[in-house]
Amino acid sequence: MSTAGVLEDAGSSRDPPSPMASAKLLTASASGPGWTKVSCPCCMSHRVDPLVLVKLGKKVRPETKRWLLKLIGTLQKDGGAGLLAHPGEDASGDIMVLSATRCTLLQATEELGLCRVYKNGDMEAFSYEDRDNFKDSGVFLTLAERQYIVKYELDGMRAQRAIKIPGLDDSYMLQPRDNIWQKLTSAGVVVDTVALHDQEQLKALSQAWYAGNQLAQPLDSVNSYFGSSLAFYFSFLDFYTWSLLPPAVLGLSITYFSVQKEVVESVSGSQVIVDDHSGPGFSGHMIQAVFSMLWSTVVMELWKRRSASLSYRWGTLHLAERFAEPRPGYHGNLGVNPVTGRVEPLFPEWQRDLRMALVSVPVVGLFLGLVVLGMMVFYWGEAQVKRIHADYDSLWSQTFLYLPSVLHILYTNVLATVYKTVAEALTDYENHREESAFDNHLTGKVLVFTFFNYFAVLFHIAFFKQDVPLLRKRLASLLIVTQLINQVTEVVIPYLVDRFISAPNRAESEDDPQEDKFRNQGTLPVFPGLFAEYIELLVQFGYLSLFSCVFPLTAVLLLINNLTEIRSDAYKICKLFRKPFAAPVANMGVWQIAFEVLSFVSVVSNCWLLVLSPQIQAQCLEGELTCTKILMLAVGIEHVLILVKTVLAIVIPDEPGWITKKRLHIEFKSMQALRQQYFVCLDVKLQQSSLK
Amino acid sequence: MSTAGVLEDAGSSRDPPSPMASAKLLTASASGPGWTKVSCPCCMSHRVDPLVLVKLGKKVRPETKRWLLKLIGTLQKDGGAGLLAHPGEDASGDIMVLSATRCTLLQATEELGLCRVYKNGDMEAFSYEDRDNFKDSGVFLTLAERQYIVKYELDGMRAQRAIKIPGLDDSYMLQPRDNIWQKLTSAGVVVDTVALHDQEQLKALSQAWYAGNQLAQPLDSVNSYFGSSLAFYFSFLDFYTWSLLPPAVLGLSITYFSVQKEVVESVSGSQVIVDDHSGPGFSGHMIQAVFSMLWSTVVMELWKRRSASLSYRWGTLHLAERFAEPRPGYHGNLGVNPVTGRVEPLFPEWQRDLRMALVSVPVVGLFLGLVVLGMMVFYWGEAQVKRIHADYDSLWSQTFLYLPSVLHILYTNVLATVYKTVAEALTDYENHREESAFDNHLTGKVLVFTFFNYFAVLFHIAFFKQDVPLLRKRLASLLIVTQLINQVTEVVIPYLVDRFISAPNRAESEDDPQEDKFRNQGTLPVFPGLFAEYIELLVQFGYLSLFSCVFPLTAVLLLINNLTEIRSDAYKICKLFRKPFAAPVANMGVWQIAFEVLSFVSVVSNCWLLVLSPQIQAQCLEGELTCTKILMLAVGIEHVLILVKTVLAIVIPDEPGWITKKRLHIEFKSMQALRQQYFVCLDVKLQQSSLK
Repeated sequence: MSTAGVLEDAGSSRDPPSPMASAKLLTASASGPGWTKVSCPCCMSHRVDPLVLVKLGKKVRPETKRWLLKLIGTLQKDGGAGLLAHPGEDASGDIMVLSATRCTLLQATEELGLCRVYKNGDMEAFSYEDRDNFKDSGVFLTLAERQYIVKYELDGMRAQRAIKIPGLDDSYMLQPRDNIWQKLTSAGVVVDTVALHDQEQLKALSQAWYAGNQLAQPLDSVNSYFGSSLAFYFSFLDFYTWSLLPPAVLGLSITYFSVQKEVVESVSGSQVIVDDHSGPGFSGHMIQAVFSMLWSTVVMELWKRRSASLSYRWGTLHLAERFAEPRPGYHGNLGVNPVTGRVEPLFPEWQRDLRMALVSVPVVGLFLGLVVLGMMVFYWGEAQVKRIHADYDSLWSQTFLYLPSVLHILYTNVLATVYKTVAEALTDYENHREESAFDNHLTGKVLVFTFFNYFAVLFHIAFFKQDVPLLRKRLASLLIVTQLINQVTEVVIPYLVDRFISAPNRAESEDDPQEDKFRNQGTLPVFPGLFAEYIELLVQFGYLSLFSCVFPLTAVLLLINNLTEIRSDAYKICKLFRKPFAAPVANMGVWQIAFEVLSFVSVVSNCWLLVLSPQIQAQCLEGELTCTKILMLAVGIEHVLILVKTVLAIVIPDEPGWITKKRLHIEFKSMQALRQQYFVCLDVKLQQSSLK
Repeated sequence: MSTAGVLEDAGSSRDPPSPMASAKLLTASASGPGWTKVSCPCCMSHRVDPLVLVKLGKKVRPETKRWLLKLIGTLQKDGGAGLLAHPGEDASGDIMVLSATRCTLLQATEELGLCRVYKNGDMEAFSYEDRDNFKDSGVFLTLAERQYIVKYELDGMRAQRAIKIPGLDDSYMLQPRDNIWQKLTSAGVVVDTVALHDQEQLKALSQAWYAGNQLAQPLDSVNSYFGSSLAFYFSFLDFYTWSLLPPAVLGLSITYFSVQKEVVESVSGSQVIVDDHSGPGFSGHMIQAVFSMLWSTVVMELWKRRSASLSYRWGTLHLAERFAEPRPGYHGNLGVNPVTGRVEPLFPEWQRDLRMALVSVPVVGLFLGLVVLGMMVFYWGEAQVKRIHADYDSLWSQTFLYLPSVLHILYTNVLATVYKTVAEALTDYENHREESAFDNHLTGKVLVFTFFNYFAVLFHIAFFKQDVPLLRKRLASLLIVTQLINQVTEVVIPYLVDRFISAPNRAESEDDPQEDKFRNQGTLPVFPGLFAEYIELLVQFGYLSLFSCVFPLTAVLLLINNLTEIRSDAYKICKLFRKPFAAPVANMGVWQIAFEVLSFVSVVSNCWLLVLSPQIQAQCLEGELTCTKILMLAVGIEHVLILVKTVLAIVIPDEPGWITKKRLHIEFKSMQALRQQYFVCLDVKLQQSSLK
């Protein structure tokens, strides 16, 4: 095959070219051999970047593949994807390589509502018709955006009439408005869709990101290579890590002073004046508590501002998701969308609300109940085995002591796995129209559960057992142990698997054909999403803001952990997984809310821990009247702090003033569009009439 | 004068015509004698409705009036107001009557962002260019909107170059971009701008509103005659009054059962089993407290939904205030607005924030401190005079007993008056760009103060004195006395003044010239705005949601009060004041927030009052441990209820689903405008090129 020949040719040249460079060689003859024909004259190009690899089923017939190649090359208005497709080695191979024409990319840019730099230097919502007035409209989409658009077009293909797919039996007949890509996936024709790495860019990115000793992350490059959702995660990680500095310094100095005090006291041997000792201890505890309450609010408010400016910078301030086509899994009766006037599946809002209220909420509640039940059974079991051990005191009964913990861990894990499946099924059943709504509801469900799972024990110790030393011990062990485990499971194990099990299977030599290199990328595990990463941060943030007053070194430990976390996450995403498809997003979505909720809960828990602090409890035991008064004081302080937090959250604007102006400008422009265009039309019409 | 002749002619005809009818007669000769010339052919009309009366200073020279008439008639693009002006009796009289041309009205409709019914029956943002596709584009603006637009155009006039105003000395020279109407007002040329009543519509409105025994208010007519801000007030009053029914029924039944219980107990003479009595009393108190907490949230959430549908119905869902010209009082250095690209005064955001933080907040805080100080001095003084009275016990010392109350009332009134002036000055100094921002900040300031003024004493009794019987007594007397006083001061006094003092001065006979009738409307007092009305509702709502559990009949009293309040407010606004100019608004603005804040504070106060309830206090005295536990329980319940309220507020959507769809559709249309218009242009261009 000629294409394969060109590829081998490119691969065997002295200077090893990157896939992109070889792709340039490969397609130097324009959309020549291999690539599907371009229908639009402006999209004829001397360079086609391979963006996406599609893996087909082993048993797919050549006629099915030919039909699919043709369909992908067909324009959107005729029911295709408007993309460029390449059959790989030959027409019968089980891969296809896809790319996108300039027109398709630009039209999708407008559809997605991305902003781009206008000729006057401002960001403006991209308009295909006005494309010549945007700067660099040729190459101005990032790799991540281009790959997302390819996937977006594939997912958006819908049958315009009943079609029989060649090479498949009639059970896979396409009905009008059927989602073609979904059908092909369920029929086993399409096995996988993989975003291809650009080795050159990847190398440069990893150099700038984690290879050296640099402190700052190359966030813009991360955004352009991996897309905005990942870039937002790393930006937040960055922002959050640096904002750990103040509490870390405070925690260190509190620890230093209290240790010094203890040393002084043990040297002078004075344990006489107990009140003298309770004074500074009380104030350190208190400073830490009040500080962490205000700190969490200020950090989250400042992050919102930073997030808004990043979203402006990355052109995702004005996404038009709600006006776009519904996500592929969305189903309902065909009808006219009252917003856009397009024919598409419609699903009534009230029915979704009903499903959420009558199915999702009770089921989630049930699982939360199971978590609590598990915890109670665990405590009961532990009491039982302790009693048995005390009664019998044999080797048998000693091994019995570990049984409740083991059973509880097993139970928790099984519950979490089952819950994840159930949550997905529930969210699917709720039938959300937008991808982001689906994601947010799924994340929300898993989040509530995970949060409960992580914090139920700590809250139980703090509020029911009211045992501060146990809380401190538990917190310290959680911080150290879970972080070690996380680092190991997240990086070391995948690294070892990759290094010693997977990698030998896909040993790659420079002489390999280009297709094999692409194919190898498909063997990497799928990127599991940012859920685990965000949960880790959220749990950290929870430890810090909810309970750190009993263990002032929390922030220090977290700071150290996060400095390595940045690198290990970066390494992981660059090397150990497939490149993910990343939809453009304007913020962290539901995670933002989760962090803010935590920051409010922190006021309650900190005020409570203040009441529980040993010094205050000691005072409390002296006279009962004081106890009620202290509680009332704590409640009063809590209310004032919640008020202060609320006022802070309102007073600090969620976006910097200049972003507000830019956003309003974008809105104003789209409002004004009608009027301006009308006058253009009028001019044309006037000229026309004068011509007659 | 010919015009005066026509007017007198109209006035002396047998069937007494309304001003509007006579205006039709007056202007039957198109924009004929008297009215300024219409420059635009489409605005030539056989009917000019007099909308606004402008009262000029007594000493204004004829040349100034002529210049002003001409300026008002000039198109906006040439620095005028694009309105129709009539000199009244003659060119030297001290009034002018204004109206607006069709073009000016329609263009302003687009500028304000009003929505109107499109040809397909949906509401859509009005577009002047697309005007033919809107239903009834001739008469589709309400009287209130037309009058507001006249004022809007007058306020928007800006000098395009330095102009010397004829008949005034050089100190009133206009500089470029000066606000002309402001300058004329400060120069004493313009004394007053009065929106004219339409006696026919007014009569029909008052018939339907308060003359009969009807239960429902004619809210649409109120909106069209008085504008949306008043209509929102009356809609809220209506909604709130009907939503008082459930708490009223609950309060009545609680009172009934507790009275019956007391009767039964007194008959059987059993005062033995105290616990038996505390049981039901406790539960009645508790039911009332929990009910009023949840009730206030549900009512406010449902009102938001109602408010959204009213705003859609009245076409104010999509107001474009931020893109409009700044309000007249706004000042700053001339510059290019980054949002709209127009040249206008600019004032940096941070400077405003600084002024608010460093000037407004401390000053408001100072006044709040003065309120508290006054209250403390009052209590101290009362204790002092009681001591003196006990010591001397003479007639002199007895009169002394009233001194603290009298001084406190005097002090409070003086403080409130001073504060109002100060708040206005502060808000002016903050230099807000939009009229609504100015209003909201002013309202917010006065609101905080008034709220403090009304509730400080009640909170003091509840939280510091912890005296439930005193609170109940105080609440009952406040409810009954303040409502009586309000009704008297709001309606009876103005009615008497109007009837016996003002009315004889403007006795009107049918033979009077039209101008005199207009002129008479100017002698009515200016409508003082809705501030007092809203505050009354807010204070009511506060009594009910914060403290009603100690006095279950609150809702019943409020319901009775409001049923008369609706009528008296309606009467007042129709008869006793000038017709106000009403800017179109989409909701109640800052009042919405005030009610919601109250509804959250109610959770805190109700939980606290539960703890204070006599039954619980009795239990508390038995054993000290119970006291702490009860407090903890109350705090726990409070947190759960706040959570429930928050969840309720999130789960109940702020606008009905169908409104969301309509709003999105409006947004989608304005986004799509560019694209659609482009294709129209393209078609035209193609036709053009084929012609060549």
